[in-house]
Amino acid sequence: MSVEEHTIVNRRGFLGLLGVAGAGVVGTALVPGNVGHGEAIAETRAFLAADAATATDGGVAAAEPHEHGRASAAAQTSTADDALSVDEMDAMHEASVRAFPAATAGLGGQPLPFVMDGDVKVFALSCQVVQWEHAPGAFVEAWAYNGVVPGPEIRVTEGDTVRVHVRNELGQSTAIHWHGLMLPNAMDGVPGITQAPIKPEGEFTYEFRIREGNAGTHMYHSHYNSAFQVTKGLLGSFIVEPKDAATRPAFDREYTIVLNDGPIGAYSLNGKTFPATQPLMAKLGERVLIRYMNEGLMIHPMHLHGMPMLVTAQDGYLLPQPYMCDTLNIAPGQRFETIVNATDLGVWAFHCHVLSHAEGPHGMFGMVTAFIVEP
Amino acid sequence: MSVEEHTIVNRRGFLGLLGVAGAGVVGTALVPGNVGHGEAIAETRAFLAADAATATDGGVAAAEPHEHGRASAAAQTSTADDALSVDEMDAMHEASVRAFPAATAGLGGQPLPFVMDGDVKVFALSCQVVQWEHAPGAFVEAWAYNGVVPGPEIRVTEGDTVRVHVRNELGQSTAIHWHGLMLPNAMDGVPGITQAPIKPEGEFTYEFRIREGNAGTHMYHSHYNSAFQVTKGLLGSFIVEPKDAATRPAFDREYTIVLNDGPIGAYSLNGKTFPATQPLMAKLGERVLIRYMNEGLMIHPMHLHGMPMLVTAQDGYLLPQPYMCDTLNIAPGQRFETIVNATDLGVWAFHCHVLSHAEGPHGMFGMVTAFIVEP
Amino acid sequence: MSVEEHTIVNRRGFLGLLGVAGAGVVGTALVPGNVGHGEAIAETRAFLAADAATATDGGVAAAEPHEHGRASAAAQTSTADDALSVDEMDAMHEASVRAFPAATAGLGGQPLPFVMDGDVKVFALSCQVVQWEHAPGAFVEAWAYNGVVPGPEIRVTEGDTVRVHVRNELGQSTAIHWHGLMLPNAMDGVPGITQAPIKPEGEFTYEFRIREGNAGTHMYHSHYNSAFQVTKGLLGSFIVEPKDAATRPAFDREYTIVLNDGPIGAYSLNGKTFPATQPLMAKLGERVLIRYMNEGLMIHPMHLHGMPMLVTAQDGYLLPQPYMCDTLNIAPGQRFETIVNATDLGVWAFHCHVLSHAEGPHGMFGMVTAFIVEP
Repeated sequence: MSVEEHTIVNRRGFLGLLGVAGAGVVGTALVPGNVGHGEAIAETRAFLAADAATATDGGVAAAEPHEHGRASAAAQTSTADDALSVDEMDAMHEASVRAFPAATAGLGGQPLPFVMDGDVKVFALSCQVVQWEHAPGAFVEAWAYNGVVPGPEIRVTEGDTVRVHVRNELGQSTAIHWHGLMLPNAMDGVPGITQAPIKPEGEFTYEFRIREGNAGTHMYHSHYNSAFQVTKGLLGSFIVEPKDAATRPAFDREYTIVLNDGPIGAYSLNGKTFPATQPLMAKLGERVLIRYMNEGLMIHPMHLHGMPMLVTAQDGYLLPQPYMCDTLNIAPGQRFETIVNATDLGVWAFHCHVLSHAEGPHGMFGMVTAFIVEP
Repeated sequence: MSVEEHTIVNRRGFLGLLGVAGAGVVGTALVPGNVGHGEAIAETRAFLAADAATATDGGVAAAEPHEHGRASAAAQTSTADDALSVDEMDAMHEASVRAFPAATAGLGGQPLPFVMDGDVKVFALSCQVVQWEHAPGAFVEAWAYNGVVPGPEIRVTEGDTVRVHVRNELGQSTAIHWHGLMLPNAMDGVPGITQAPIKPEGEFTYEFRIREGNAGTHMYHSHYNSAFQVTKGLLGSFIVEPKDAATRPAFDREYTIVLNDGPIGAYSLNGKTFPATQPLMAKLGERVLIRYMNEGLMIHPMHLHGMPMLVTAQDGYLLPQPYMCDTLNIAPGQRFETIVNATDLGVWAFHCHVLSHAEGPHGMFGMVTAFIVEP
Repeated sequence: MSVEEHTIVNRRGFLGLLGVAGAGVVGTALVPGNVGHGEAIAETRAFLAADAATATDGGVAAAEPHEHGRASAAAQTSTADDALSVDEMDAMHEASVRAFPAATAGLGGQPLPFVMDGDVKVFALSCQVVQWEHAPGAFVEAWAYNGVVPGPEIRVTEGDTVRVHVRNELGQSTAIHWHGLMLPNAMDGVPGITQAPIKPEGEFTYEFRIREGNAGTHMYHSHYNSAFQVTKGLLGSFIVEPKDAATRPAFDREYTIVLNDGPIGAYSLNGKTFPATQPLMAKLGERVLIRYMNEGLMIHPMHLHGMPMLVTAQDGYLLPQPYMCDTLNIAPGQRFETIVNATDLGVWAFHCHVLSHAEGPHGMFGMVTAFIVEP
């Protein structure tokens, strides 16, 4: 089978699908805050079903007589996996992918509404203990801002004055650090150094002006008993848009990926674990801004299949010399901004390349999602 | 409360303090080798006391009636922390900060004196087993150069010829590798490859010329049974100043931070663990050179609150394009040089952002210090 | 002893050796695929023997009367190493170095032959379970392409069309992901997303054109049960040469280092653990291209003694601003290309600087090799 045949087979399934799913809808399905999760789920499932069908029906492998036979080589299987037969393992692998993107209750990282008080943008965050569904049927106790993990996204512009009312409904004291922002010391959110801890049922109001030069991808999270509270979910993205958009690389749509390796399903992207992670969708030819932030305790080198990323900013600061890569190592506390040109159609795996954070004998899990490029 | 009120409250405490502590003294208190630890301790404690008072008395939180009440939400507390009540946990968190910077016996990283033998700078290092106090009252067995962890700083200039007499008073053989220096192979310090091991009670003399082009932040450490000996404390900084200072970024004062995660208190900065770590002090407007080196076995992404760093050199080599960040990931063996502009007054937390290296239910510990900017 | 004397002593041993070993042969001994392992082993052993003799006989240490005496400080030795006497530990350290480079059965990473089918370069890979000798006498079960770890190197040129026949002789399904290559989605090798798994005794044919702009250092590896299959050995290098060599930095010879931390001896370079790792050899003045790729689950900051590296490409993409370092942190999934100028004669240690991956009380092991510069 030539490259051309492969491509034709692939396109047939791919385009055929689009006829069903309706290309018009997909385009903006996952721009945060635009559309519900449900649409994206239905659409992505259709994509994957078509893709898998392509692979099974039209792929080279299907022509092989032994393709589905149990090999005599089975006796060589390592002890570690002896409990599963080949077909059982395949079925589990397939089931995890088929379930993607799985519906779960709760969606973090959506824009946090604000009200204006004169020139001040006023936000409110409540720290709560909730039951969080990170994968279908998998609930864990999360410590969350406004009930979601990650907390809602705070998005403002250079020069804005921001006020955030924080109420603590946890069983421990807490405080919020605005990681990456330049602000008056008293607003930095470190109990014992810049403020008293916010006791249970206590409140605190943070207020600061976003300085020019501080645009980019930042975070907010607990700075009290933080190894526990942050990884439990008290974290969120704080995006500062530039006053002049022309000062930063142009893009057609954007996504933010919050990495965590805490108690919430161990390895999560935006508070969800595969297959409940959200896919990133793009139309062919679009420039997609992907923001990363690591709120966990381990490195996570994120690998995008199929297309490289241009790394344009680190910790919010524009790199004087952007560089290309396909695997971006993100350490705890770091943020990166990258631009991906959606040059290639298809469903592209996108995952942490510490493979034990992404796949086991039972299939993919944890820090896995897909970058989906449609016509 | 407006931003202006916040700032005023903060400044009142901050400036009030300075009247007490005497601003004139602080300025050079922690320039290595200039002044004793005691002055810095007294001064920093006063800073922190004032700061905390500000937060408690003047902060927004104090206006809330429930601020100090025990919340009914306590029942939601995770099992992991059930052993501590809210007030107990708060008290422990506060105590660790109040103790900072805590006095301990021994201070590593101070300049190693030398004598001239003709054109040669002659240093002496003795490898010894000592009891090392990394936090108040916390003594561990350390393997140390000249009795301190990190070993004394060796500081020379490009073009110098350096001779180092090493005497082994340990119970194991050892050898010293000059990590980052370009030198004759026989001086590289790897037993079995470039020399015989230095047996207990044995000696060895290293001698080499510092090449032009080798300026920057380097290290010396054991290269024998090294996973054990280095993390136990056989490590130190080796700074090569450029012949022409104009070839490197200008700065007003400098600090070196040696990261380690070995037996010495697990997570240490310059051989001490919080609250016994030394603060970094600066006057408003100064440019501060911070050198990092990782002598441990894990990554440590160091996060400075409040102000970004300009990363100017890696492993001693000037970066052709310095870049900005606020969280710098440092892997074992790596060194970085950064410049921080001290633009903002206050006591700024400064810690490893692998949060489990910095804070637990009992408060901050390990790889935590503060960057203190005074008027 | 002056620097000059040191240098003379060193040179005497070093040059004396070369008279024995024959400098002419060494030059190309380890260019992959040129010469067998045996020659390199004999030669390198001779180098090391001469070097060690130099250190013992002519070094400063030998002049010390207590050099070989058991120190009274022995009682201070930490419990962890009490089981070994000084001489026992020294003997074990020396033995591991003397054995280097130790002969073992099997050598991975050699060029994979291909046949032309019209314009298509056709390769074949068979996935097999083998017993793999990673260190002398240390056999482990490996999952391997064509029986070797790493799998054979696939090396092609921008613009080539590549076809790879894959046959699965394992007891689990599998699939191959071409990590770093831009290709049609159906060829990306992710079961459930882009193809069906390749069942035991099944086959699959991948075919794709290597795009212009995709030159550099890439990888191929399993993308099925991958945390297990990749670390077990289903991995290899995929090198894309540029159509125009002038577009990339010039070099005189090259090496590829595949990092792994899986079941194969825990910490391996190109499927071998020290002392069975292969040395990198160079002639004085040569420019050596060293390619790194991390197929493991942990970071590995590789430290080259004696000479810095110029980092020229990341994940195959040329850096707009190459930078210098001596310790390069490589995260799982990342690749780097570096140029080392072989400016200094000798046997230079070259190892992962997570020291616990490289040395223990019994001497060096795991991720250690040497960079050997000869006249």
